Amino acid sequence: MKLYAVVMAGGVGSRFWPRSKEKTPKQLLKIFNGKTMIQNTVERLEGLIEKENIFVITNKVQKDEIVKQLKSIPEKNILIEPFGKNTAPCIGLASIFIEKLDPEAVTLVLPADHIIKDKEEFHNTLNKAAEYAYKSKGLVTIGVQPTRPETGYGYIQIDEKEVEEGIYNVYTFAEKPNYATAVRFLESGDFFWNSGMFIWRIDTILYEIKEYLPDLSDGLEILKKSFSSDNFEEILENIYSKLRSISIDYGIMEKSKKVFLTKGNFTWSDVGSWEEVYQLSQKDEHGNTINGKIFTDMTIDSYIYSPDKFTALIGVDNLVVINTKDSLLICRRDRSQDVKKIVEHLKVNKLKEYL
Amino acid sequence: MKLYAVVMAGGVGSRFWPRSKEKTPKQLLKIFNGKTMIQNTVERLEGLIEKENIFVITNKVQKDEIVKQLKSIPEKNILIEPFGKNTAPCIGLASIFIEKLDPEAVTLVLPADHIIKDKEEFHNTLNKAAEYAYKSKGLVTIGVQPTRPETGYGYIQIDEKEVEEGIYNVYTFAEKPNYATAVRFLESGDFFWNSGMFIWRIDTILYEIKEYLPDLSDGLEILKKSFSSDNFEEILENIYSKLRSISIDYGIMEKSKKVFLTKGNFTWSDVGSWEEVYQLSQKDEHGNTINGKIFTDMTIDSYIYSPDKFTALIGVDNLVVINTKDSLLICRRDRSQDVKKIVEHLKVNKLKEYL
Repeated sequence: MKLYAVVMAGGVGSRFWPRSKEKTPKQLLKIFNGKTMIQNTVERLEGLIEKENIFVITNKVQKDEIVKQLKSIPEKNILIEPFGKNTAPCIGLASIFIEKLDPEAVTLVLPADHIIKDKEEFHNTLNKAAEYAYKSKGLVTIGVQPTRPETGYGYIQIDEKEVEEGIYNVYTFAEKPNYATAVRFLESGDFFWNSGMFIWRIDTILYEIKEYLPDLSDGLEILKKSFSSDNFEEILENIYSKLRSISIDYGIMEKSKKVFLTKGNFTWSDVGSWEEVYQLSQKDEHGNTINGKIFTDMTIDSYIYSPDKFTALIGVDNLVVINTKDSLLICRRDRSQDVKKIVEHLKVNKLKEYL
Repeated sequence: MKLYAVVMAGGVGSRFWPRSKEKTPKQLLKIFNGKTMIQNTVERLEGLIEKENIFVITNKVQKDEIVKQLKSIPEKNILIEPFGKNTAPCIGLASIFIEKLDPEAVTLVLPADHIIKDKEEFHNTLNKAAEYAYKSKGLVTIGVQPTRPETGYGYIQIDEKEVEEGIYNVYTFAEKPNYATAVRFLESGDFFWNSGMFIWRIDTILYEIKEYLPDLSDGLEILKKSFSSDNFEEILENIYSKLRSISIDYGIMEKSKKVFLTKGNFTWSDVGSWEEVYQLSQKDEHGNTINGKIFTDMTIDSYIYSPDKFTALIGVDNLVVINTKDSLLICRRDRSQDVKKIVEHLKVNKLKEYL
């Protein structure tokens, strides 16, 4: 059994404006340490998956920067989607590349821009999931043990009886709940956060795609026959232009009969807003996270980023302040989900220089 | 009787950081309209004082910008102090230049960076004060009718009996009061805001300087003898280096026996903080004053200035936001007096590029 990974790095990430822009989405930014999120994601696989078995799937705009950031990954492993069509086509495309190398490859599919804090526990979880995926030919999800009634995540409900140690049958997938429902989920003990990480054999996922997404499967078959064609890119673009945009969750996971869950007991976040960045960051004695040339007076519980320009704050609290070369965000922390409104405003008003 | 003016423009204005810097203090900034505060100050004298009778006294750093901003004022009327030594030496120096032209010149002394809203009432007040100053050979102050218990201004108490119509004897000068005292001042009816504007004959003020500030008077006598000397500047610097720093209020006004007050019934402010700028500015329906490329969502009662860079605010209130090319201020409006702390911090830490 050989382990492979597909790192999905196509996201645009409008919720991290003005740091994330079209050419610099969240996964390409240094948010928590001196490394970018995608660098941390790849580094987190060290000791588990060989570098030459890690594939990254992204788009034309981000490709060059990703090649630059991930020098240890062979450049031929950086795959390009001509358009974003959600996760099912993305996973399908990556899968036929891996199939060429090893049809039984056990493959971890994971987003490039999440944070996970306990690497050892993470590896233990993945190893267990990989073994079961290889043996059972099932689709194995990683469900993170919830620690709070989070309304920003999807949930996965399990049958409480173990299939074998640490492996559970999945009962249902639940959309982002409201607060009362999230509290119920937390109390029930059988709901887990859907981490967006999946493990399966390549032959398994391609079989399931054929079963539940036959259009996609047909497209992939054509592509497989065109691998050595001079105009592969053109064919890819042509096929992609006709594909439905559909998520792997909706397209397969919620329909398949052989979906399992492995519990992940590590700190995990999809880092969906500046508020989450603040929560996950180190704070000083005033509850501030400060990065840059900053003066504060009577300022508490705030996240302040100003690497280039001098920023002074007096008498404020609970703010997110992101001061970049050309733009400035000042947002109450509890309103940081609304940062995407700014990106909409910029698009509507064609203020492209700030996007 | 001929009217002259001395516009005092030496102030550094640390309370308007990051717009006011060493080379661009408050008086040289466009804060309320398309004209700088000193341009508005000079324009406000139009119809009252001839341009060639207006003198401006400043320092080396600001000179060139002032010459540029005040094209209608003869360049020889822009006087330079080698050092700032508070208002008494500044007024003494300007006075000997005017004395050469007309020893009986009735001279209005006023700061370059205040705001006055009713020009006609302002002129009426000055005309009355000028006539009385000419005739009485007294020192006439302009006292502004208080409209609120302001703790940021000095006050002048009058004897309620008029000396003649609209002219009062001054009883005492009061420092900036605490709130309870300010309320008492407002209720009493005989306390007025000290506007820092004075009117007197040049022979009067030079006589009073001789009486109460003999050291300054001696220095001025030497300077008068050196007017045509090639090394006037050198002599000026030498004399200034030895002068005490002292205000005209403390040095003369509080001691002289012939101080009068004319009531000014116009809107006046010394514009001492961003909060006052906000109070004096036009606001939109959300109570915001917005200047620049700005997006707001659920943002109220704030003063936002960002002419060059795009600024987005979400869910905030009662802020002052000043976003300049190299610096950013975010300050609660009611803490805007503390902006000077930032300037102190920059000085202590030798961050000269932001000063």
